[in-house]
Amino acid sequence: MSTPLALKIARDYGTPAVVIDMDRVERNIARIQAQCDAAGLANRPHIKTHKSPYLARLQRDAGAKGITCQKLGEAEVMVDGGLDDILISYNLIGEEKMARLAALMRRASVTVAADNPTVVAGLQRAAELAERPLSVVVECDTGRKRAGVETVAEAIALAGQIAATKGLSFAGFMLYPTETGWREAQTFYDEALNGVRALGLNASIVSTGGSPNMKNLGKLVGATEHRPGTYIYNDRMQVAAGVATLDDCALQIYATVVSRAAADRGILDAGSKTLTADPGGGLDGYGLILEHPQARIARFAEEHGFLDLAQSNTRPNVGDVVRIIPNHVCVVVNMVDEVVMVRGDEIIGTLPVAARGKLR
Amino acid sequence: MSTPLALKIARDYGTPAVVIDMDRVERNIARIQAQCDAAGLANRPHIKTHKSPYLARLQRDAGAKGITCQKLGEAEVMVDGGLDDILISYNLIGEEKMARLAALMRRASVTVAADNPTVVAGLQRAAELAERPLSVVVECDTGRKRAGVETVAEAIALAGQIAATKGLSFAGFMLYPTETGWREAQTFYDEALNGVRALGLNASIVSTGGSPNMKNLGKLVGATEHRPGTYIYNDRMQVAAGVATLDDCALQIYATVVSRAAADRGILDAGSKTLTADPGGGLDGYGLILEHPQARIARFAEEHGFLDLAQSNTRPNVGDVVRIIPNHVCVVVNMVDEVVMVRGDEIIGTLPVAARGKLR
Repeated sequence: MSTPLALKIARDYGTPAVVIDMDRVERNIARIQAQCDAAGLANRPHIKTHKSPYLARLQRDAGAKGITCQKLGEAEVMVDGGLDDILISYNLIGEEKMARLAALMRRASVTVAADNPTVVAGLQRAAELAERPLSVVVECDTGRKRAGVETVAEAIALAGQIAATKGLSFAGFMLYPTETGWREAQTFYDEALNGVRALGLNASIVSTGGSPNMKNLGKLVGATEHRPGTYIYNDRMQVAAGVATLDDCALQIYATVVSRAAADRGILDAGSKTLTADPGGGLDGYGLILEHPQARIARFAEEHGFLDLAQSNTRPNVGDVVRIIPNHVCVVVNMVDEVVMVRGDEIIGTLPVAARGKLR
Repeated sequence: MSTPLALKIARDYGTPAVVIDMDRVERNIARIQAQCDAAGLANRPHIKTHKSPYLARLQRDAGAKGITCQKLGEAEVMVDGGLDDILISYNLIGEEKMARLAALMRRASVTVAADNPTVVAGLQRAAELAERPLSVVVECDTGRKRAGVETVAEAIALAGQIAATKGLSFAGFMLYPTETGWREAQTFYDEALNGVRALGLNASIVSTGGSPNMKNLGKLVGATEHRPGTYIYNDRMQVAAGVATLDDCALQIYATVVSRAAADRGILDAGSKTLTADPGGGLDGYGLILEHPQARIARFAEEHGFLDLAQSNTRPNVGDVVRIIPNHVCVVVNMVDEVVMVRGDEIIGTLPVAARGKLR
């Protein structure tokens, strides 16, 4: 059983195909922008999810103040595509990066994050090469054990180092609180703010992160902007986090059932080189098949998705084209050079994933 | 602590960079070709590992009979690159695929695999469009529960269907025995061969698979060719399987330590969008850091690799460039548009991963 659109996608592009519904994309963009507006926060969407200047411009035109990039190479693609207000939420390091960062600073408003003195010391070189000041925010870890200084004292010291470094200006703080850790984040931020004020500095940017944190928007008193990424497409993780419904999932993988080796087994033509082995934070299986929600994408070969149909009352036939909501949409987008755009049942065309693979 | 080459790579290309050592590549190509020659088997390397026509031509020039591709899109890139004897070890299905397959058949010698009647019935269309016969091998599952018919009876019936289908010719069997299941595979094959002979058919191709199976080369009596893939680069899985040493690992990811948030933690600039979340069949961590073999790449964000240094006596500093042997090299190669080629400490240049992302 395949939908009419699935048959059209298979005929025109072949499978597996990564398909985005622009009606849903636009609805997601508008909804999250409205939530940021209502919370009095600037919206600075993270483009790692879509990696497309076209979609970043849609986000900007809907009201986003600027964008967030994780890698310098992503930022370069976005500036090429007409975006001009960029936060690179990443520790950039090394002379190759500094030369590229300097070139970018001449073309756009760029702020970077740092979480340690070595990175801050190195950033001086970019400002020197660009012959203009570089804004730097201090990344703070407030419980996730990812990037970011762990203590208030380090945050204050790093702000002081930034302010004292020729060519750099302290711009504020970047945080990514855990979904339940907003009180701790508030305490951290309040103390860090007091500390930098004692140094005669101020935090003009206080940036919070994450689509899962949309439900906590505005909880951090003093925040100036939010960096949601995944919301433009959504995925099983966002649905599990309670911030999206299946109808909000704008990206689906269309895959063909290429084998039914046994009654309780099947094989999709989408494997780990399409859906990725991202476990989605402990979700069951590697994606949700809309036509067969009880079927489990149990494991992968590189180009095969192995279906466990034992618990599924409905079972696909060889040749069926099915639609899959991925566990983690950001990593799936990064597998393909282009996505197919549709509106409802209408195919519009393809959209390049221009910053795909920009890992440097 | 970074090697001189690591510093050169970081300066010339930036990190993370995927680097292949051509001395090791050539040595791996020669060694496995010699093993196939000694076993009296044709070598038909699987190009999913490197996705490069240049490297496929090196394999051919070293004695490989032809190549194996998993996806039609890979095969198209390889034929564009001058390869002309291709096994597509995959169930191809749908009119879009048949049109492309027909076009390819006009340009190269193509054999495809099939494991079910629906696929076989569909392949007729490609032969019709190409106006030439299509060779089809029957894929047999002998224990892995991947693709392939599960029973001898199905294998024989499918061979009969192929032979009876206008435009198709039965070419033989494709198997991928488990590392310990060669006796079962032999029984399956012997019975299937008897069965097809009773139909007046013969198996001119009997193809076995897998780099981990290099240690079993020649065990299947009657095999005509082998399809090793990963051996050209090797990885932690191959080392764990006992078919390669660390010195045989020709591909390394060069990554920079961008943060040391705490004494027992560190962060690489290579995350799941570089190293992939492939668990490598249960290996500990997501890669081996040559400079710090006790450091554990414990988890990922998309552009961050989180190091657990608790058990590591040596600990990197921020700014160090380290070399990583990945768990599963085939999926890492597919993340990047090009790899950097070196010989020992000399940088040669870059090589496009021409068939990257060819998932259709």
